[in-house]
Order: sequence, then C-alpha cells, then structure tokens
Amino acid sequence: MLEKIRICLVAPSHPGNIGGVARAMKTMALDRLFLIDPKEFPSEDAYRRSAGAEDILNQATVVSCLLEAVGDCGLVLGTTARQREIEWPLLSPAQCAEVVAESTGSGIETAIVFGTESSGLSNEDVELCHSLIRIPTSDEYSSLNLASACQIIAYEIFKGVRQGQETKIVQNSIQASNTVQLRQFYQHLQQTLYDLDFVKYQHPPVKLMRKLIRLINRARPDSEEINILRGALSAIQKQLNKS
Amino acid sequence: MLEKIRICLVAPSHPGNIGGVARAMKTMALDRLFLIDPKEFPSEDAYRRSAGAEDILNQATVVSCLLEAVGDCGLVLGTTARQREIEWPLLSPAQCAEVVAESTGSGIETAIVFGTESSGLSNEDVELCHSLIRIPTSDEYSSLNLASACQIIAYEIFKGVRQGQETKIVQNSIQASNTVQLRQFYQHLQQTLYDLDFVKYQHPPVKLMRKLIRLINRARPDSEEINILRGALSAIQKQLNKS
Repeated sequence: MLEKIRICLVAPSHPGNIGGVARAMKTMALDRLFLIDPKEFPSEDAYRRSAGAEDILNQATVVSCLLEAVGDCGLVLGTTARQREIEWPLLSPAQCAEVVAESTGSGIETAIVFGTESSGLSNEDVELCHSLIRIPTSDEYSSLNLASACQIIAYEIFKGVRQGQETKIVQNSIQASNTVQLRQFYQHLQQTLYDLDFVKYQHPPVKLMRKLIRLINRARPDSEEINILRGALSAIQKQLNKS
Repeated sequence: MLEKIRICLVAPSHPGNIGGVARAMKTMALDRLFLIDPKEFPSEDAYRRSAGAEDILNQATVVSCLLEAVGDCGLVLGTTARQREIEWPLLSPAQCAEVVAESTGSGIETAIVFGTESSGLSNEDVELCHSLIRIPTSDEYSSLNLASACQIIAYEIFKGVRQGQETKIVQNSIQASNTVQLRQFYQHLQQTLYDLDFVKYQHPPVKLMRKLIRLINRARPDSEEINILRGALSAIQKQLNKS
C-alpha cells in the first residue's frame, strides 16, 4: 500500500531539506519523491543530508507544476501551518493516516504535498487538494522544519498502514476520479457559469469557484459521478445554444 | 506538564543536530535540553539549524555524564533503534506519550534520552532508563536522523498531553445545513433537470437522483454552499424561460 503514496515538495528552496525528506521517507518505507520546481537539484547538500537514502533522490521525478505531479492521483492531501482565509477540510496527521490507509488499500494513487519552506502552499495549489493536514504545534512556535514535518506525516502513515495490515481495513471500491478529471470538470463548470451569465467575464469568480471546488472535493466524486455532472453541464450548454 | 520534561542528548557528534533537536522541541512546546558531553557546543551550526529556537540552546545544561542529567528524575525513558542483548521494557512512541502524560501529570520529573548518532545508548546508559522507546521504521532502513527521532517523540508527547487537556482537534466551524434545506435543494435540482430536458417526466430519474444525493450528502454542504448551488439552479431556470 505504501507504494501508492508519493511525497510532493513544491519549490523547496534548501537542497539540504530535500535530502532530509528523502531520509525521512526511507525510514518509513516511502520511496516516491516528486519535486516541483526545486531551486537546486540535484545537489551535494541533498545527497549529504539523505544519509544513505540516495536511491530516493536518484529516482525523484522533477516537474514544473503541482498539477503535473498529482494529475493521476485520486487523493491529494496538502500540509498547512496557517489558518487560511477560506477554510478547507482539515485533518490531523493521525486522521490523514486513516484516510491514506483506506485510499491506498483501494489502490488509489495518493499524494502528500508540502509547500515551500517560507510560505507554504499557494491558494492555487490548495485547490488541487481534497483536504489539508495540520500538524499540531506549540502556539508560540510552529516553525517545523520541512524534513521534520515530512517525518511526522510519514511516521503516522507508516504506523497506520502497519496497524491496518494487522486489523484489516474495510475496502470500498470507489473508482476515484483523478486530479486531471476534476480540473476538467471545474473548467467545464466555470465555463457553464459564464454561459449562464451567473458570473461575468469582467469579474472572474475566484472566490465562488474556490467554494465550489472545496464543496465538490470534500465529496471526493468518483469517475461515474463526474460523468453525470459533466453530462448535466453539457445539457445546460446545449439548451442555452438552442435559445 | 510539558515543563516537567527534559530532552537529553548523549554525546551528540554533529552540532547541527543539536540545533535541529532544539527546533523540534520548541515546535512541541518542550524547552529543557540537557547535553551530555557534546563534541562541539556551543557552535554556529547548532544556532543556524535551530532556526529561531536559540533560547533553548542558550538555556541548555551541559553535563559530563547521563547520571548528572537524570539524577533527579522519577522517570527516564531511553530511545533505541536496535534489538538489544538484554531485553528492556519497550514502548512505542504513543505508549511513551501515555506514560509521560501520567508521570508529568503527577509532577514527576521526566527525561527522554537519545544516544549518540552512530551507536545509540551504551548498556550503562540503558540501565539508567526505566523503559526504552522504539520508533517503528522500515525493516530495510531504520536510520532516523537524531532531530527527526526527537521530533516524532516530542510530537507524540505533545499530542498526548494536549489530548489529555482538550480531547478535541480544532474542527472547521461549518454551519451545517439541515435536512429540510437539503430536501428543498434536491427538489430544486430535480426540477431543474426536468426543465433542462436532461431527464424526462415519463421516466422519473430515481437512480440518478440517488447518485446525486449520495454525492452531495458526502460533502455535507453548509448553508452558504446550499445557497450558492440554489442560486446557480435559479440562474439556469431563468435562462431557460428567457428562450
């Protein structure tokens, strides 16, 4: 089940942290690392901090945007340290581990996404996530090192999957939609809202779309459900063209 | 309760790790660091890696043997990565958190001891410990960084003490929609699907509606979200009447 999990680092700025993440992953039997637009990679610092986990660095996939990294994933979980303007469904690391054990147990490709060291995930990146994970920290000082944050999440997942193997998790056979299908649906939805004059081209409905994405992401629609929804959108567009 | 806990590092050889441990401690509201015969301290590397946790480094107590560091403690827990010749009572990090919550809750001075990076705790040091803690890791690669190991233990302890205090994780404050609002929404949705000719009056879309209800119910929409969705349905109906 752990082989269905990928760790995605968005724009890591310190190469040492990439090595630290690789080491943290390997201790918890995770081995798929995606680097989105890293400032410096490969690098000596990364290899030195990886301390024997260089195979993970050697196999790492470097891409230029988060969508490329998570396009085929059925579950995308982002990590966050801060309170956000628009609330996104929030999991604790232990809850994350439960959700991940369930999804990977059903064969669903699953991504855990970490934002850049200084500012975390952008709102655009958050919109690719079904839920966010927040690691509980001291109120006075919440500055977790990137590798440390990854270590905690990886540890909880490893623990959860191990326990799951012992107790057997109930599997549900949802054919999850992936991120690309979801994105296409949201684009179709937004276009339909324009066609309907529900929103105006002069005022792109950023906040409204974010709310709709958050709502639909929460439900984690499967492929059939996405097809039904897109069928309805097409029916709207067809009727509008008739008139 | 957390103020009753001290973190003890036996003969740390990389000063950067001391800084990493200080940072890990501070994120989890621990602040008492004991260094037993550190190879290099104070050091620039330690301060750099501490990233804002330099107060913990400044207050650190440097001693020459473990007994000096834990002499006044009522509970001493050592960490170990390896199977030992003589078996010692062994705790998981979560079990450790329970034991620590209990001891600190009773006002007992409590120490968590980490061995040197290369070889861990000596048998003499183990004998000062009431129990050992083992962090579960991959069978193939168990080489946890010192700061990462400390991060996991500190996280479990922090979580344990917090749960003792609150029991509840911060949940999103969603103003849940009630069943009546949901029912009205589904009626509105079904009517709109008729209006769109997406379904026919002769064949009530029982199965389709069930699928849509299941999908939306899964997301547990709040009142605002229901209003947005109903607004969109009204916009569709308005456009259709225009034609």
